[in-house]
Amino acid sequence: MAIHAYAAKAAKQTLAPFDFDPGPLGDAEVEVAVTHCGICHSDMSMLDNEWGIATYPLVPGHEAVGTVAAVGKGVSTLKVGQRVGVGWLCGACGKCEWCLRGKDHLCPEQRATIVGHHGGYADRVRSDAKFAFPIPEAISSAEAGPLMCAGSTVYSPLVHQGVRAGMKTAVVGIGGLGHLAIQYLAKFGCEVTAISGTASKEAEARKLGATGFLLTKDLEKAKFGFDVIMNTVSGDLPWPALLETLRPEGKLIICGVPASEIKFQAFPMIVMERGIVGGRLGSAADTRDMLAFSAAQGVKPMIETFAMKDVNKALDHVRAGKARYRAVLAN
Amino acid sequence: MAIHAYAAKAAKQTLAPFDFDPGPLGDAEVEVAVTHCGICHSDMSMLDNEWGIATYPLVPGHEAVGTVAAVGKGVSTLKVGQRVGVGWLCGACGKCEWCLRGKDHLCPEQRATIVGHHGGYADRVRSDAKFAFPIPEAISSAEAGPLMCAGSTVYSPLVHQGVRAGMKTAVVGIGGLGHLAIQYLAKFGCEVTAISGTASKEAEARKLGATGFLLTKDLEKAKFGFDVIMNTVSGDLPWPALLETLRPEGKLIICGVPASEIKFQAFPMIVMERGIVGGRLGSAADTRDMLAFSAAQGVKPMIETFAMKDVNKALDHVRAGKARYRAVLAN
Repeated sequence: MAIHAYAAKAAKQTLAPFDFDPGPLGDAEVEVAVTHCGICHSDMSMLDNEWGIATYPLVPGHEAVGTVAAVGKGVSTLKVGQRVGVGWLCGACGKCEWCLRGKDHLCPEQRATIVGHHGGYADRVRSDAKFAFPIPEAISSAEAGPLMCAGSTVYSPLVHQGVRAGMKTAVVGIGGLGHLAIQYLAKFGCEVTAISGTASKEAEARKLGATGFLLTKDLEKAKFGFDVIMNTVSGDLPWPALLETLRPEGKLIICGVPASEIKFQAFPMIVMERGIVGGRLGSAADTRDMLAFSAAQGVKPMIETFAMKDVNKALDHVRAGKARYRAVLAN
Repeated sequence: MAIHAYAAKAAKQTLAPFDFDPGPLGDAEVEVAVTHCGICHSDMSMLDNEWGIATYPLVPGHEAVGTVAAVGKGVSTLKVGQRVGVGWLCGACGKCEWCLRGKDHLCPEQRATIVGHHGGYADRVRSDAKFAFPIPEAISSAEAGPLMCAGSTVYSPLVHQGVRAGMKTAVVGIGGLGHLAIQYLAKFGCEVTAISGTASKEAEARKLGATGFLLTKDLEKAKFGFDVIMNTVSGDLPWPALLETLRPEGKLIICGVPASEIKFQAFPMIVMERGIVGGRLGSAADTRDMLAFSAAQGVKPMIETFAMKDVNKALDHVRAGKARYRAVLAN
């Protein structure tokens, strides 16, 4: 049965309806009837072929939520009718050192939902069962969408980098990623300072759990202020000033991709044992943990919902930086 | 009783004999009769006032080894006649959060042996007893000198960053720091690749324990090669190529201070969860561990010994990059 999707025929084109035959379901796969799919910045990067790995027609969508419609004959962990979410990854080799360590997100043969594979801007999407995650009751399907990528992208690095209760933390950027990072850190029991170029975002940041607010131009006021900073913005930042806000042994986690090179003098890093580390979405195990934590602690994305047929309107809204804070398509 | 030392009267001057009265011994202090003192790159940085914190007359020397000549009345841990070493630190507040955590090397009120304090190019040097470390029997006094700073500077970050047996590691630079880092990593049970611009250093690197050798210009041959890289050189490096030699979750530890800014694109850091972290000499506890490990495993600096009165000749030798690999002054 054909899958009804929305696809771009070439880089930077608008999406149009696109039907395709997905072929026989793999033994390890499930097919998910999509009810909701979040729009992520990476969908745009792939649509524009920013990373040079896009193939067309390209069906975006890697924050898909729905119900299992069919299971491959080797699948014993999911049942038809079960509510699941599919994120950036839809497969991994299961055999390499990274998979054996439970770090399948670092598998060199990992398969991404929208790289050489059709994603969730569709009525159905496929994934290896391992990467289709049961959604806890407490999380609505619309809200689960953005957790599948944005949620994992900020939650996982915080856990990998050993963030714990009582730490002094900061989040740069109050947007799709940042508004979730603030919530996670607040629920971890950390002090959280929201850092933004926009003064008017302070009230919302505090509502999300921020215990402090700092304008990017005032970084020098927070010298030696933070054990961990998570950068969620894609623009360039005053790196030396930002690094000076780290306490001894402090870490700057980079999640947003800056436009230009990151540049800094090594000396202040050396004497204070500070570090800069890349952060990205986690493993299958991390994603399960993230969903359980989000459900237990009430972490939710703020979303705006669009009908799937209005996908181009929704993409324009996100491209214009107007989403507060994540857009979700609904079938 | 006056201390007989060698001091510079102003920045970039040669050293000349300098006698001074150290005043009464502090309750928590010991006075050490110096038999040997290593020459460290930081002595030169202080002599040249590179960091803007030098005061003159300046007595360099923070790799001092000798016997305890006197103990303050509050000192119960050391006895007159005991052999000890004094490194970069000679005091810390003992009260701040970092001291309480056993991380006294991060104490904001730490006192350095050659910053506003007279160092080990002398017949005697003083230190808080906490930072005068008993030297294990197996280590000669001459060889203990360079361990006090160079040894701690490479050993501590490797431990702090969780280096463990079986890891694939690399050391950039086979010099005063690098030749010790290679030995520690080999004795930790790691694979160690020595990276150098000088092909003729391969044989020596292998003698020190390196299991591989790579020319800096050939970094692309080692893509995804290393879990941990320790950079010990002070020059600039091809940072993006070096970072590409890190495996997923790999860390580049910066110990040498590069001349210019470190620059790199964030994307390869993010997708591979790679990190860059500053590394420096460790705490009192780290220093004790380093000495015990060095004694047990036979890690020793390669040294050239000069008479204390030939201090200027020795400094010229080190400044010219001729030391293989650390120079030690002997009284």
